[in-house]
Amino acid sequence: MPTMKAAVFVEPGRIEIQQKPIPEIGPTDALLRVTTTTICGTDVHILKGEYPVKPGLTVGHEPVGIIEKLGSAVTGYQVGQRVIAGAITPCGQCHSCLDGHGAQCGGHAMGGWQLGNTIDGCQAEFVRIPNAQANLTLVPDGLTDEQVLMCPDIMSTGLGGAESGHIRIGDTVAVFAQGPIGLCATAGAKLMGATRIIVVDGVEERLAVARKLGADETINFNQTNPVEAIKALTGGRGVDVAIEALGLQETFEACLRVLKPGGTLSSLGVYSGKVSMPLDAFAAGLGDHTIVTTLCPGGKERMRRLMEVIASGRVDLTAMVTHRFKLENIVEAYDLFSHQRDGVLKIAITP
Amino acid sequence: MPTMKAAVFVEPGRIEIQQKPIPEIGPTDALLRVTTTTICGTDVHILKGEYPVKPGLTVGHEPVGIIEKLGSAVTGYQVGQRVIAGAITPCGQCHSCLDGHGAQCGGHAMGGWQLGNTIDGCQAEFVRIPNAQANLTLVPDGLTDEQVLMCPDIMSTGLGGAESGHIRIGDTVAVFAQGPIGLCATAGAKLMGATRIIVVDGVEERLAVARKLGADETINFNQTNPVEAIKALTGGRGVDVAIEALGLQETFEACLRVLKPGGTLSSLGVYSGKVSMPLDAFAAGLGDHTIVTTLCPGGKERMRRLMEVIASGRVDLTAMVTHRFKLENIVEAYDLFSHQRDGVLKIAITP
Amino acid sequence: MPTMKAAVFVEPGRIEIQQKPIPEIGPTDALLRVTTTTICGTDVHILKGEYPVKPGLTVGHEPVGIIEKLGSAVTGYQVGQRVIAGAITPCGQCHSCLDGHGAQCGGHAMGGWQLGNTIDGCQAEFVRIPNAQANLTLVPDGLTDEQVLMCPDIMSTGLGGAESGHIRIGDTVAVFAQGPIGLCATAGAKLMGATRIIVVDGVEERLAVARKLGADETINFNQTNPVEAIKALTGGRGVDVAIEALGLQETFEACLRVLKPGGTLSSLGVYSGKVSMPLDAFAAGLGDHTIVTTLCPGGKERMRRLMEVIASGRVDLTAMVTHRFKLENIVEAYDLFSHQRDGVLKIAITP
Amino acid sequence: MPTMKAAVFVEPGRIEIQQKPIPEIGPTDALLRVTTTTICGTDVHILKGEYPVKPGLTVGHEPVGIIEKLGSAVTGYQVGQRVIAGAITPCGQCHSCLDGHGAQCGGHAMGGWQLGNTIDGCQAEFVRIPNAQANLTLVPDGLTDEQVLMCPDIMSTGLGGAESGHIRIGDTVAVFAQGPIGLCATAGAKLMGATRIIVVDGVEERLAVARKLGADETINFNQTNPVEAIKALTGGRGVDVAIEALGLQETFEACLRVLKPGGTLSSLGVYSGKVSMPLDAFAAGLGDHTIVTTLCPGGKERMRRLMEVIASGRVDLTAMVTHRFKLENIVEAYDLFSHQRDGVLKIAITP
Repeated sequence: MPTMKAAVFVEPGRIEIQQKPIPEIGPTDALLRVTTTTICGTDVHILKGEYPVKPGLTVGHEPVGIIEKLGSAVTGYQVGQRVIAGAITPCGQCHSCLDGHGAQCGGHAMGGWQLGNTIDGCQAEFVRIPNAQANLTLVPDGLTDEQVLMCPDIMSTGLGGAESGHIRIGDTVAVFAQGPIGLCATAGAKLMGATRIIVVDGVEERLAVARKLGADETINFNQTNPVEAIKALTGGRGVDVAIEALGLQETFEACLRVLKPGGTLSSLGVYSGKVSMPLDAFAAGLGDHTIVTTLCPGGKERMRRLMEVIASGRVDLTAMVTHRFKLENIVEAYDLFSHQRDGVLKIAITP
Repeated sequence: MPTMKAAVFVEPGRIEIQQKPIPEIGPTDALLRVTTTTICGTDVHILKGEYPVKPGLTVGHEPVGIIEKLGSAVTGYQVGQRVIAGAITPCGQCHSCLDGHGAQCGGHAMGGWQLGNTIDGCQAEFVRIPNAQANLTLVPDGLTDEQVLMCPDIMSTGLGGAESGHIRIGDTVAVFAQGPIGLCATAGAKLMGATRIIVVDGVEERLAVARKLGADETINFNQTNPVEAIKALTGGRGVDVAIEALGLQETFEACLRVLKPGGTLSSLGVYSGKVSMPLDAFAAGLGDHTIVTTLCPGGKERMRRLMEVIASGRVDLTAMVTHRFKLENIVEAYDLFSHQRDGVLKIAITP
Repeated sequence: MPTMKAAVFVEPGRIEIQQKPIPEIGPTDALLRVTTTTICGTDVHILKGEYPVKPGLTVGHEPVGIIEKLGSAVTGYQVGQRVIAGAITPCGQCHSCLDGHGAQCGGHAMGGWQLGNTIDGCQAEFVRIPNAQANLTLVPDGLTDEQVLMCPDIMSTGLGGAESGHIRIGDTVAVFAQGPIGLCATAGAKLMGATRIIVVDGVEERLAVARKLGADETINFNQTNPVEAIKALTGGRGVDVAIEALGLQETFEACLRVLKPGGTLSSLGVYSGKVSMPLDAFAAGLGDHTIVTTLCPGGKERMRRLMEVIASGRVDLTAMVTHRFKLENIVEAYDLFSHQRDGVLKIAITP
Repeated sequence: MPTMKAAVFVEPGRIEIQQKPIPEIGPTDALLRVTTTTICGTDVHILKGEYPVKPGLTVGHEPVGIIEKLGSAVTGYQVGQRVIAGAITPCGQCHSCLDGHGAQCGGHAMGGWQLGNTIDGCQAEFVRIPNAQANLTLVPDGLTDEQVLMCPDIMSTGLGGAESGHIRIGDTVAVFAQGPIGLCATAGAKLMGATRIIVVDGVEERLAVARKLGADETINFNQTNPVEAIKALTGGRGVDVAIEALGLQETFEACLRVLKPGGTLSSLGVYSGKVSMPLDAFAAGLGDHTIVTTLCPGGKERMRRLMEVIASGRVDLTAMVTHRFKLENIVEAYDLFSHQRDGVLKIAITP
């Protein structure tokens, strides 16, 4: 039985490279030879045991690769084509998917997130993609692996935050936190026509990247109270849309506090405790507020659109790849990434 | 200076009938001779001092009346016409109104709610209606005062909860609490095509009214755990839309717990403390949930549509008027209403 | 090779019962033993040669049946279960489906309509359902075949016309033509909260059924000019939404003429020539009009919702089954249906 | 009685400068001293008698000016402030306005278009703005008259075409005709996240401006058949949204022909005859097409948002002002503009 290298969750605090069998595929699957992948903040939650997965699982959910094998029921693709699949792999055929909620595939919360969660993921030499017919998208010629590496998760999630906020031309938007997802939310806000984008983070390097991606104004929360600053910048009016891209009570609440009556709070963060809405910020429930959460939209049409954004030059995310590691050294990469050393944003991993 | 009787907030715990000058009007106002009005749950909050207003204010925000005088800039109406105005009186001309947020008129939270809040209200013989051009709607012939008495607030709010939930044909909807607003939310869910409406309350009489207004299944929370019951009724799937119509952490949380992934929580309650989303019920922020709050939509087009609903016979809310009082006895009516004695739902007050 | 009876298109003017092999199925298909089906207006277009299909094709696209066989990749179903499939069988996995346009599956106009169009249909003892995973829906216990017989096409299309019109609570809606689809559009308008539904047809029996399904006012175009009548009924204001359910220039144009500025024309008709918008009715392109066409929405979630509507008792379409024939006598049924004799609305066909 | 210079429609073929009384204002009006205005294609229709107005009317509907007087009921503004008003001046208070159809104010087709149509316009030294409270927007400091001159009509209409098309991130969009409105539609498509914008015109200079405003590909219809070219460019798939910005059957039909199944045709053109949809291009009414027309959105919130777009630097339309004339020489300007001589796009007129 042929084997491959894979990054495997062993126990809390320990992900390591192991030799595992190359996955077998069923009629609706595809097998990809992974050419580039990356580490996500969620993977760090897994590493730390904060998000529980089964020991022995191969982690990772952001694959760029080459089709190695196709299930018998998968049509329209050929072995050897270069493709991506989203972090979320909706089946397209269940009630939730057909109702427009692919990320909640099967009607289970987060049901569409399988790779590196409920089935083996892609921090490996090979990965099995389920429901391949709905999830493989050819990479357009002329785009490198690194150019499309953000599409499967970070870019889909970040832009999704802007889309779920229903940003309109002329909106003022605040984005709290400018990690990889927040930066993509900033890019998304600009793409949708927001004309004043105010971003908040504590790291100057990230604020500098944010400016390149569309931020009109940046607030370093170490120097300035962001709620007060945004109120002042908007003449007390508040923002049309506030995007939460971190997952803390503090940032969620700040989003609510800078929101205009009738505004929308678009939440992307993964929370690790309950989230509260203070009475005043929530206008006692009478502020015509909308709060919406978004799990990374997936599926091949989504991936096609995101790669179109890249191909068009409208958004350039290559500056987000700050480091590169071989798969065999991924333990080191996890260490760097989880401690956010050395200005790391995203790490390209190549098997 | 001619005077009139009015129900005036004196201090927490005390609303009383006083003799006050009949309001004067400006060029964009109208003066109504009130023929019927009613007491709202919010008025009870005012009475108790839980919602602060200025002592001396005439309370009440649900007017049916006759046009007594029209400001010089108000056109298309005539003295003597029978009209209603909404509890919320948007100006139609500020940035918020023109952006579709009339209830947040002027860009202030709840800014559209003036009557009986920031200006004198309609539990009086006469009431000044601001921005009359945008807020007076003729009552169609053949409808009685009591038939349209719910339009200004209760019906607009309740139906608004269904509308903000974007209920679709074939949806399963839960409504928590079947007071006047919850009952109207039930009617709204049915009007929009929900095919399974599950309502929760602790008062059998209210559940009985709910069944008449569209509830398919009723749960008495004194007998049954509503979250478990709704999960069982939906085969674990959860509801598409949950409407909160009370304003407690407990009911808000229950709504979240019965919601399907991708579902919408439409909140109508007026909360008196912070509201929290437990981590599991909130799917850690990854459940593609939408939470939306709605303040009673106002304006004359809204009122016209609501009266069309009544006139069409689609919804009959007259059963909700359980008691009738003269204005001069309104203190008694407040006592009855605030203690929810005698199966009271709504009280018609006539000057 | 086992054979079955099937209604086959031979040449324009001739559909006949032939003995054909029972279909074989692939891994993503299901084989249904048809228990009830019906004839659609589109089938008559096929019969007359107005809508071209390949000679030898089995016609019919409205199946109720029992699962006889399941492809190897289809999960969650069992042989022997009673199901329906929609007239439109989206794959759920192509770019169009994943973008919310299942009826245009594959990116081809009407691409989702395969049964009885591009592949063999269900006026037969057995039918192969493609993409079974996305298209089989269990019939709830207690519903008869005839109760759900309208779901696959007529009801989905008619309600779809109301949905595409984005009907809101309090809308005035006109529906032109009250054949089976128009009647379902009327039911759909009521389901969505229209409070004044004005329907137009030339057959009194149909207008009588319309009144049962929700019409508030009926206009017999043989007696009254419907455009003038609707203008008069609405005080010159026009309707919020006009639904075209026939497919003629005349009815399309009438819809446009009764539409308010800012209104929506929802078109369901299958046209057989070009459709024009007169300059005045189209307000020279400046009336903020929306014109939207809808092909029958399909897929199992859609079918589930429609059967919920039936099960809830909100809509009762059984009065639409006016005649019953055995499959072997389907030629007679076509003759009756295509000549609209004997007050026929829909004919139940049983193999 | 003080008088002023004004461009007056005398008879078909003749607009001339006349001396007229300075307008008087009522309680809800404002008087502006016009500092800059421009000529619109619609004004040329008026000049030619193709769009009928009453002889003696002052034409023009795109004002930049200084508040000279305020009606007694207008609050929050001061004499001397620099403002714009939209070409469309919704009242904000009628049923249509409160229902979101301000351009159809009063429920009449185009009812919101008053300036230079049903009341005197702004090609004059002074102009009366009706419903001033809803229609005056302060020009942000630092923006010149010419920078905001497109906001009242051209920019609002062009961006409106993109908005009504519901353009999404990753869409492919075609825009037919690149006159001033088509150019703004191109800018709007880019603002909303379209990643492939294909524009069509016959004038190379306009195609060059289009490229600056966001066009990814340009087609000169004198050299290339645009329908074939767009089909080829999209691999036969068609575009998500096609914007018609001219008002001819030919361009309308071409839009329909390049549209994908499920796509949206957003029409901005003013037609001068009936518009037809050929059977094949319209997929016999079964293509899930949406056709939407948009009259220039107005009101002060709209104007505020458009000026935010300008102030943010997202869109720079100053290149569209190709010529400048004094008001007294406006007859010459009309001559130049109506014959589209000398590469004219828009002409700034200063009293």
